[in-house]
Amino acid sequence: METIVTKSLKFDSQGLIPAIVQDAETDQVLMLAYMNAESLRLTLSTRETYFWSRSRNELWHKGATSGNFQRVAEVIADCDTDTLLIRVYPTGPACHTGNQTCFYRHVETLA
Amino acid sequence: METIVTKSLKFDSQGLIPAIVQDAETDQVLMLAYMNAESLRLTLSTRETYFWSRSRNELWHKGATSGNFQRVAEVIADCDTDTLLIRVYPTGPACHTGNQTCFYRHVETLA
Repeated sequence: METIVTKSLKFDSQGLIPAIVQDAETDQVLMLAYMNAESLRLTLSTRETYFWSRSRNELWHKGATSGNFQRVAEVIADCDTDTLLIRVYPTGPACHTGNQTCFYRHVETLA
Repeated sequence: METIVTKSLKFDSQGLIPAIVQDAETDQVLMLAYMNAESLRLTLSTRETYFWSRSRNELWHKGATSGNFQRVAEVIADCDTDTLLIRVYPTGPACHTGNQTCFYRHVETLA
């Protein structure tokens, strides 16, 4: 696999990059969150996920409140270098609802 | 699994919602793209993926140029109803580089 350095990544006009979080063992997609440069730096150096909370407008260490941390297996960028895929070993559910994954609602159109 | 109707989804200020595309057979994460209401409607009705291209500013039927379509297995929303997970059966590589997935670059910090 190719490698890329963090300074080559493209953050958007708000300084954020979307990060897909995937379970490294089950391959289940767990959540989508956003990172700024600081949260990415902390994620790579501590090997636990940090995000930027757009609703609370603050740095967010995943698991700091819930105890459900995500140990980082690998951080992968896409071809456009504007999206990240973070493969993790979670120590508990990703979702604040207690679901293993945040993706648990089938989308349907109204008949 | 719960169900949710499309009109309950939250599109952002530009009328878009991020859509993670995952291979329904291998569980590999293939790409992240964006949908507006029209591309989501087409995706659900035709069972092939349609996106909104932010760079070209136009509706984008995945595979129309490359021949690499994505047949839709299921469309799932997350707990915040502001992100989609599209599980697909791809007929070819997701990436314009010819890679099966757009995620093929390990992110590293400079020493």
